[in-house]
Amino acid sequence: MYDVLTLREDFPVLSDVIYLDNAATTQTPKPAVSAMLDYFYKYAANHGRGAHRLARETTDHYEDAREIVAAFFNMGVENTIFTKNATESINIVSRGFPWKKGDHVIVTLVEHHSNLLPWMRLRDMGIDVSVVTPDIQGVVDPDDILSSINENTKLIAVNHVSNVFGSIQDIEQIIGIAKEHDVKILIDGSQSAGNMFIDINFLDPDFFVCPGHKGLLGPQGTGVLYIKEPETIEPVFLGGGMVSSVTSDDFRMEPSPAKFEAGTPNIPGVIGLGRAVEYVSEIGVDQIEKHELSLAKETATRLGEMDGVDVYGPEDRAAVVSFNVVGMNAHDVAMILDQTRSICVRSGYHCAMPGIGHLGVNGTVRASFGLYNTEEEVETLVRTVSDITSLV
Amino acid sequence: MYDVLTLREDFPVLSDVIYLDNAATTQTPKPAVSAMLDYFYKYAANHGRGAHRLARETTDHYEDAREIVAAFFNMGVENTIFTKNATESINIVSRGFPWKKGDHVIVTLVEHHSNLLPWMRLRDMGIDVSVVTPDIQGVVDPDDILSSINENTKLIAVNHVSNVFGSIQDIEQIIGIAKEHDVKILIDGSQSAGNMFIDINFLDPDFFVCPGHKGLLGPQGTGVLYIKEPETIEPVFLGGGMVSSVTSDDFRMEPSPAKFEAGTPNIPGVIGLGRAVEYVSEIGVDQIEKHELSLAKETATRLGEMDGVDVYGPEDRAAVVSFNVVGMNAHDVAMILDQTRSICVRSGYHCAMPGIGHLGVNGTVRASFGLYNTEEEVETLVRTVSDITSLV
Repeated sequence: MYDVLTLREDFPVLSDVIYLDNAATTQTPKPAVSAMLDYFYKYAANHGRGAHRLARETTDHYEDAREIVAAFFNMGVENTIFTKNATESINIVSRGFPWKKGDHVIVTLVEHHSNLLPWMRLRDMGIDVSVVTPDIQGVVDPDDILSSINENTKLIAVNHVSNVFGSIQDIEQIIGIAKEHDVKILIDGSQSAGNMFIDINFLDPDFFVCPGHKGLLGPQGTGVLYIKEPETIEPVFLGGGMVSSVTSDDFRMEPSPAKFEAGTPNIPGVIGLGRAVEYVSEIGVDQIEKHELSLAKETATRLGEMDGVDVYGPEDRAAVVSFNVVGMNAHDVAMILDQTRSICVRSGYHCAMPGIGHLGVNGTVRASFGLYNTEEEVETLVRTVSDITSLV
Repeated sequence: MYDVLTLREDFPVLSDVIYLDNAATTQTPKPAVSAMLDYFYKYAANHGRGAHRLARETTDHYEDAREIVAAFFNMGVENTIFTKNATESINIVSRGFPWKKGDHVIVTLVEHHSNLLPWMRLRDMGIDVSVVTPDIQGVVDPDDILSSINENTKLIAVNHVSNVFGSIQDIEQIIGIAKEHDVKILIDGSQSAGNMFIDINFLDPDFFVCPGHKGLLGPQGTGVLYIKEPETIEPVFLGGGMVSSVTSDDFRMEPSPAKFEAGTPNIPGVIGLGRAVEYVSEIGVDQIEKHELSLAKETATRLGEMDGVDVYGPEDRAAVVSFNVVGMNAHDVAMILDQTRSICVRSGYHCAMPGIGHLGVNGTVRASFGLYNTEEEVETLVRTVSDITSLV
């Protein structure tokens, strides 16, 4: 049985606030924080860089975390790269891909800035970038992607779940279209990883990225990058730990994943992420998804029935509910929610200005749900929004 | 008074091992770990991304850490950028500098791979790279840098302290030479930051980099980058948090430091780093330097007097002592030190193959000292090395 009250005990801050900003970052559970504490107090050292006992133990724990994350998504350990965040993951691909002038890339208008700007910048190199427009609920029609493909198209970059609309893209079909046309595909799983079941071996994208600190419940400062064919991507950063030999004239790189992890990595963060992913697995992604979706559906339905509230996104949504109180600025609504009922929601552009512009608004209030949120919290949110509408 | 025994209580792992691998990474003191715990359990949220109380508190703590680090080095807050590690810091400069084909860069043979490979790669872009050879003790003669400058020289990249030799470069003079010839200069402070007094406003380099997890005692996954003129450097990564406006056609970047910190940063790591730098300040860098240098000098002197031991580097050294037991592989020596006396030293190339090649050896054993090491630990190291020489 899904026991949300017991589970909440692993997240101390939840006794102080109603935390509904999980699309920005989640809280990290005690077992993951404890794993980091163990690292700092029992065996901290640098990774892969020494023969002594602490260095060996650190390396073992760091690489165990890689195996946990790889198994979680059903992907190869050698294809599983740790980064600082999903932003770094995407930029590694956009900067390391073997572009030629005249190549063509397809993105959508409903991407987070992180999955938009790294592609837009390629225009400076003579790469053509098409931006596919979703419907007004943030859903991308796979046929629109299909019709954007031309003979120069090399890559499609698309979100799995929109952080503004909570819309879920049909990535299975979009990946199929990419394969049929011999185009590489990157899936931005920032809003889906840990919240929805994802099997990379089954989906078989060329690239998959996600942060460690959202649905995976890891600490901030961690991200994941899956590359199907790591030998095709040039690393952005060079340095220690990623070369096997160096002279003043030449150097030879290690294979993936080392080649993409130059310098001392975020060792405590990755160890915490590994434990967090185990925690998610223990509860079960299916259980988490069912719980979060039920809260989001309840919220969207009840807010949608309210006079003076606009709710955005499709009925069949992920655990993200964007809305506005008609006649009020989104930030003001968020401030009132915080000050009157300690409800933490996000407000504004959500790092997705083109998507917000597509809605024709100046921002939204966004409530996003995590595995630890409760029906009582939804009740409090809905009632408080109702009270706010009476202020207008 | 410098009370090393009291201070050691802040580093629990030191009761289990003799930790002499501080040039690879230091241990993190309890107050810094506690600051991270407070973050996770009391106010974790994303940085600069929300109006709610947790987001505000997180942003305040993160930016406080920036002020602490900026004040520590006497540099501007807007010039103080948080990165994953010193490697990222250097790569941001090497990739973001406004290069033109035919430009010329000067580095030295005694750099860590992180301060060598990012410059060597520029050769693919038609940049000329000169590698200045230090003396056999790892000291770079500023005149050799001067004589390498030509009309196309745009940048000099040099370490402050060598991680192999423990040699200290005359950066004041080298910075002076760079300025006189209108050449930009990057100082790699990886082995000096937190171990030696550094005043960036006084030294006035164009770029200064260091990790957070060595002399600054912060967690792994943190680094610092100082850029004197941030507007001249193009950021490597684009994404959320570093743009002020975005359409599907164009975007406008925020000024430094935001422009260089795309995506969710390592918030717990930076908060821990801030507290660690306060800790270093409270003890006093001068006191720390005096303590560490005394241990290193004692070690180098006594090992140097021993038959069958070669010690490398100059007499006037930083807290790094590289040596070999004649007739034995460095890794074997390190393994014996670990297994017989729980002494953690590093062995091998130390991510500096050209420097090791310059010595004409296949690696060294490296003992590197931190503020928490003791004379008793030096005594145990020296005696154990003596015992090992009798095995040959």
